[in-house]
Amino acid sequence: MPEIDPTAALARRAKEASRALALAPTSAKNAALRAMARELRKSKQAVLGVNASEVKAARAAGAAPAFVDRLALDAGRLEKIARGLEKVAELPDPVGEVRDFAQRPNGLTIRRMRVPLGVIAIIYESRPGVTADAAALCVKSGNAALLRGGREAIRTNALIAKALARGLKASGLPAGAVGFVADPDRAAVKRLLALEGLIDLVIPRGGPELTVMVRRESAIPVLSHDKGLCHVYVDASADLAMAVEICFNAKAERPGVCNAMETLLVHEKIAREFLPRMAARYERAGVELRGCPRTRKILRAIKPAAPADWDTEYLDLILSIRTVRSLDEAVDHIARHGSGLAEAIVARDRKAARRFLREVDAGAVYHNASTRFTDGGEFGLGAEMGISTQKLHARGPVALEGLTCEKFIVEGSGQVRDSTA
Amino acid sequence: MPEIDPTAALARRAKEASRALALAPTSAKNAALRAMARELRKSKQAVLGVNASEVKAARAAGAAPAFVDRLALDAGRLEKIARGLEKVAELPDPVGEVRDFAQRPNGLTIRRMRVPLGVIAIIYESRPGVTADAAALCVKSGNAALLRGGREAIRTNALIAKALARGLKASGLPAGAVGFVADPDRAAVKRLLALEGLIDLVIPRGGPELTVMVRRESAIPVLSHDKGLCHVYVDASADLAMAVEICFNAKAERPGVCNAMETLLVHEKIAREFLPRMAARYERAGVELRGCPRTRKILRAIKPAAPADWDTEYLDLILSIRTVRSLDEAVDHIARHGSGLAEAIVARDRKAARRFLREVDAGAVYHNASTRFTDGGEFGLGAEMGISTQKLHARGPVALEGLTCEKFIVEGSGQVRDSTA
Repeated sequence: MPEIDPTAALARRAKEASRALALAPTSAKNAALRAMARELRKSKQAVLGVNASEVKAARAAGAAPAFVDRLALDAGRLEKIARGLEKVAELPDPVGEVRDFAQRPNGLTIRRMRVPLGVIAIIYESRPGVTADAAALCVKSGNAALLRGGREAIRTNALIAKALARGLKASGLPAGAVGFVADPDRAAVKRLLALEGLIDLVIPRGGPELTVMVRRESAIPVLSHDKGLCHVYVDASADLAMAVEICFNAKAERPGVCNAMETLLVHEKIAREFLPRMAARYERAGVELRGCPRTRKILRAIKPAAPADWDTEYLDLILSIRTVRSLDEAVDHIARHGSGLAEAIVARDRKAARRFLREVDAGAVYHNASTRFTDGGEFGLGAEMGISTQKLHARGPVALEGLTCEKFIVEGSGQVRDSTA
Repeated sequence: MPEIDPTAALARRAKEASRALALAPTSAKNAALRAMARELRKSKQAVLGVNASEVKAARAAGAAPAFVDRLALDAGRLEKIARGLEKVAELPDPVGEVRDFAQRPNGLTIRRMRVPLGVIAIIYESRPGVTADAAALCVKSGNAALLRGGREAIRTNALIAKALARGLKASGLPAGAVGFVADPDRAAVKRLLALEGLIDLVIPRGGPELTVMVRRESAIPVLSHDKGLCHVYVDASADLAMAVEICFNAKAERPGVCNAMETLLVHEKIAREFLPRMAARYERAGVELRGCPRTRKILRAIKPAAPADWDTEYLDLILSIRTVRSLDEAVDHIARHGSGLAEAIVARDRKAARRFLREVDAGAVYHNASTRFTDGGEFGLGAEMGISTQKLHARGPVALEGLTCEKFIVEGSGQVRDSTA
């Protein structure tokens, strides 16, 4: 029967390729990553040419400058993307790692072995770097990648994906292990999300609109992040100079990212001393403050925080501040409003810190450090596919290990089971 | 605002209760499990009385004897259920386990801590033992449980759940941590599966119909098993006496369970010697054999296997047999037809065994042992919530650890991030 849907055909090729990838030794995968980088460099002129025309079209269509900037490539950016592929080759390979599990009284030895998931679909917006980046993490972790980039850069991405597939082939791995859905129609994404038997995991990389759509449409398990509604709690025992630095960094160093702070919680005992110092620092950086009634008794000039503020991911130089009576009140506020990405306490009191680290439920919980470190690179993972705010499978920064699972390996000497015993 | 839907109200109570459960020390959870057993014993007369009337109603409605048997309780079965609760109290507590992750050059220390998931909904069929069993595993792993048992035993299950909740309360933990959806209407299950913000995981325990329905309807992540289509491959190097014992056990010891073998793969080199011995053993146990053409050249009297046989979970004394030319052909057959639950090789050749263990992708892969050991108890987990054939989160037998996740704990001394560096 002829394959009608080209997306399903790509997925079928990826599924076949995934079996070879799963068994490829580390050296073969690393050689492939280096060949992928080489092929990408060889395609430089073609990729930059197509990209220039897509950038022009996006500008003509009135796209925002920030959007166009994410879309645009130049020789320097392309070289950085190629180096990224080579860097993934240097990371340790999680596949095949074995850990002991149990030695049973009947003589069975049970261990766990780390194995790839199979086929991973990545649906992303326009940044062309993601194409190489996502493919590299999939190949290194022994998975096939099925990529679908944003429509505005779809020809750039298709060319990059083709170069990567050539690199795979040149190194003896199946080219089908990096597939690219070049159909610009949105319906192609929906068809992709229905391929339950062929794709093992879907990862959306983009804004909340994309994530929500993928979650709603997908028949396949999704690994994604919701939003980053992060808090810093300044305890009564905090070193206030340290607290000022951490809170400034968490809010203002790069406000548009998911691991930036959106709400500051301050213990009332130090509020009178801390809040004016902190507010002065924020003011110089142009941060707009919105406070609860207790906060506004100290910072009289700031706006009141509306109930919706506690649930808003500003991604901007805006901060809501709440003065709390206790650690419990802070933990409770976070349980109600946090998104489970990253939460921090600044405290000298070790008991308070221990309680916060234990009681706050989030992918990453910090003591005396900025939430901004929530990142695969900063955690030493070498790269990052995204930050999961889910509780199942992988939580926090996701890199190679998050793209694998474990199987049980049971070895015996002829054991059979007697369930009547 | 009054809560209209009682299912949502139960879930909300469970969510609140889950915060207390997550922080409860091991000793408190163990005390609660023992109190739950005590309360269950105290309710013996009431539970057995209600159960007798439900058994009578099921019989009157023409339910199959096997179904009625699963439904029915007596003093012995109830005592076993109570002891099961006490046994879970003796298992090690996974919550709070900490493992090192990284020490970063900037001085940050990163570790991982095991934490509960939150609220777990378990949707099961009529066996009343599941009520106590599932609640016990949830409580021990620091989660709240939301239970929905089959309609035919719904009053029995509701009484058991009430006894468990009294046990929790008596030991100082919130009674809401074990909730039971007593509404017999199927629509109640659908409403439960829509409570995305309140429930963290759904586990269906029952036949394929239930599992498929839950997967299709649920907006919440699901942990489930598909089916058990398990193979045993008898290699050219196998100890044939051992192979006969393993293959007999895997098929015939208890054919109705998911970890029983459905298809036997035999290397052609030993087929002439092995198949007649094996067939004679199966014949005495009344196992019906269906073979591929090569197999039927040796076992001339058996039925031919139709293409559908390779994908059929018989759960009965029926076995399909395929004679293969190589290990590769066996591995390939399993990749195409296996359900990812358990697969076994019988071989003396260590290289063949190693290849099989590595190349076959399933929750549990065996060398020289029966697939029938795929079970939480047999793996030393002490109990079992089910066997997952999924790749994400938990694979193979799921017990306490599968009901938890990890969070990153990051400790510093005032570190802030400079992303421009």
